[in-house]
Amino acid sequence: MTTSPVTGAELARSLEPLGVAVPSAVPTHWYNLAADLPEPVPPHLHPGTREPLGPEDLAPLFPASLIEQEVATERYIEIPETVREIYGMWRPSPLVRARRLERVLGTPARIYYKYEGVSPVGSHKPNTAVAQAYYNALEGTTKLTTETGAGQWGASLSFAGALLGLEVEVWQVRASFDAKPYRRLQMEAYGGICHPSPSDLTEAGRAILAEHPDTTGSLGMAISEAVEVAANDPGAHYSLGSVLNHVMLHQTVIGQEAMVQLEEAGEPVAHTVFGCAGGGSNLAGLTFPFLGRNLREGTTTRLVACEPAACPSLTQGEYRYDFGDVAGLTPLLKMYTLGNDFVPPAIHAGGLRYHGMSPMVSHAVALGLMEATAIEQDDALAAGLLFARAEGIIPAPESTHAVAAAIEHARTVTEPEVVVIGLSGNGQLDLPAYSRYV
Amino acid sequence: MTTSPVTGAELARSLEPLGVAVPSAVPTHWYNLAADLPEPVPPHLHPGTREPLGPEDLAPLFPASLIEQEVATERYIEIPETVREIYGMWRPSPLVRARRLERVLGTPARIYYKYEGVSPVGSHKPNTAVAQAYYNALEGTTKLTTETGAGQWGASLSFAGALLGLEVEVWQVRASFDAKPYRRLQMEAYGGICHPSPSDLTEAGRAILAEHPDTTGSLGMAISEAVEVAANDPGAHYSLGSVLNHVMLHQTVIGQEAMVQLEEAGEPVAHTVFGCAGGGSNLAGLTFPFLGRNLREGTTTRLVACEPAACPSLTQGEYRYDFGDVAGLTPLLKMYTLGNDFVPPAIHAGGLRYHGMSPMVSHAVALGLMEATAIEQDDALAAGLLFARAEGIIPAPESTHAVAAAIEHARTVTEPEVVVIGLSGNGQLDLPAYSRYV
Repeated sequence: MTTSPVTGAELARSLEPLGVAVPSAVPTHWYNLAADLPEPVPPHLHPGTREPLGPEDLAPLFPASLIEQEVATERYIEIPETVREIYGMWRPSPLVRARRLERVLGTPARIYYKYEGVSPVGSHKPNTAVAQAYYNALEGTTKLTTETGAGQWGASLSFAGALLGLEVEVWQVRASFDAKPYRRLQMEAYGGICHPSPSDLTEAGRAILAEHPDTTGSLGMAISEAVEVAANDPGAHYSLGSVLNHVMLHQTVIGQEAMVQLEEAGEPVAHTVFGCAGGGSNLAGLTFPFLGRNLREGTTTRLVACEPAACPSLTQGEYRYDFGDVAGLTPLLKMYTLGNDFVPPAIHAGGLRYHGMSPMVSHAVALGLMEATAIEQDDALAAGLLFARAEGIIPAPESTHAVAAAIEHARTVTEPEVVVIGLSGNGQLDLPAYSRYV
Repeated sequence: MTTSPVTGAELARSLEPLGVAVPSAVPTHWYNLAADLPEPVPPHLHPGTREPLGPEDLAPLFPASLIEQEVATERYIEIPETVREIYGMWRPSPLVRARRLERVLGTPARIYYKYEGVSPVGSHKPNTAVAQAYYNALEGTTKLTTETGAGQWGASLSFAGALLGLEVEVWQVRASFDAKPYRRLQMEAYGGICHPSPSDLTEAGRAILAEHPDTTGSLGMAISEAVEVAANDPGAHYSLGSVLNHVMLHQTVIGQEAMVQLEEAGEPVAHTVFGCAGGGSNLAGLTFPFLGRNLREGTTTRLVACEPAACPSLTQGEYRYDFGDVAGLTPLLKMYTLGNDFVPPAIHAGGLRYHGMSPMVSHAVALGLMEATAIEQDDALAAGLLFARAEGIIPAPESTHAVAAAIEHARTVTEPEVVVIGLSGNGQLDLPAYSRYV
């Protein structure tokens, strides 16, 4: 036989819909929280002028459709059918009642988890990767550069690039690159290219290495490298897996589905929703549709951002304008930040190691629309193990922060209530994180 | 907070149904091919007397319900509701039209894949693990021992043990134990205990190590160890992840679902079905319901067992009685075999490294009801990579054998026909297998 490896680009995808049937439970639109906020999200600023960014400022890095979505204020934005067809591979993701966990905890709470680990790469990240790859391919981009922490994002963009015909080049935080070799192999299986960051391939990387030759890296450093390469290559654009408004938007399929699934399960009221928070995309995706309903209809669903105690932007950071990266190449974003030179310890939840927090999430927290709590790594992973043995699913280290907060809450309630956990991914490629706890 | 790890046994499961809604597409019964075969499957023989086994011969190793299923001849056996509820976590598994793969191949074939990688451990193995753990727990077993190759089976039984309250102790073929550390971590996350095999914990293991201190192990050796421990512990039973008739039975949920899903997709006729074959359980699960229809209704769906060229029991073995293990502790099984002392090379598809083949599959092949083909590892993994980049799912190395055979077939057909691929699992924990090919 003559089968031989091919690259994603060689497969030369059509961006037209394939005409496959998509489950009707897959949302047709993304939900935009900006339409319902009592005050607008502070704009991103140009790093030189400190004036609000215009579309032309972002054009070197992003396609026009995503720049529009970054500042959009309409409530619903239609999901292109090609994107929706790919969503249909694993969406709607399951909303599962955690009955065995409830029994173990002896809680009167009814606990549900919304499980994004069913996607082909095992996390929620493809929800935006597919959308970003689609709009880029549609506007003629041939290559995307990006950063990744634990690797879920790099793998997700590589997956999307393979399906939609884009080259993908990834800078992975060295701590995760070294600790989690399977993620690099996953990116490569999809045809992506993965470098450890900081690397000697960029000016930003070389400058960091000159000053800190032994650094374990950070998302801020990796962003600098990926942005630099995209800005200098006319066929390339940059893609960000969290933080920005359009990323939050794409993830809202999670919460929209969860609200319908709760209704179908006979639960019109959701009391408390727990989501893990790194850059904010899984949290926003799950909670923004609930928050929109709170704002429009006066419901009182409590929304809790669960961040690692080792990287506590929401609970310990300052709410101010800061750069998204170390080198100061990105726009200034109004957000809770630990400072763009903050390098968190090499915790297992690599996806939560970011110095800042999504401006939309930050804004919601600053307005008192959402709460935040910090979880110690030991508590998070112990909760993850309890969840795995009760429910049969091993959570991603990131997700265990939401699991831990929800378990702590469920142990204290004395009346029945509905608790929703955002299970952002599975821990199959992060199993070494659990090894000291078993 | 006070979360601390707990073992599966401490969670002390109830075996009563939880009362959760199970999707109606999850089968209510397993299908038993024995009811439709033109000649009965040759019985297993006692290794001493060479007489057909009685139930009492198997009682030290298996619970009565599974011994009954091993020789059952009724066409349908009801799935206990507790088992069906757990199936509902991930079943029905998706049947997906591989439109991008079709486009890449330029084939007139309509290719579908039945994807078992959505289970919590990422393969088809939980279909029988949950059933076996359930019947054992119901009859008072407190611990299960087993062997595992690549680790899918050991992880699946650990998963089932965690949900149903059984201790699980696994002997893993050393080649895989060393090459795939994540699988051991997965077993441990579920509370299982995993040893490399051969080990110095059993007489069988010590005897093998005395003769072959550097052996990479084999499933036959690991079975000897697990059987020995179960036979000497009154609270323990043994559990096998493939080969035996009751295991084939439990896996038939795969093919039953696939037939319904094809009908729903407007495909009343399935021309060719490809499944990978190691011990035979994924193959049987997918193909036996189609074969039963061929036998009952005269349909002519072609069924193809795809085995590794490095371990070619069906295409190169002898059809005769042989032991299931190296030490000769198991019953004699009538099967295609390479000899119970055959040690295959350390190929990546650890789940296909078995010297024999399920007696039911062997019987079907011997009667001419099913075909077999052998695939070289390089061709299998190259096909797997092509599939990953076209369809977005990285197949398990075992599954790539079916993918390769199906691709080869699809490239040759000149008329439209329906091809079904059994995608027995995903390759997330087997990514190093692909590293030479990317």
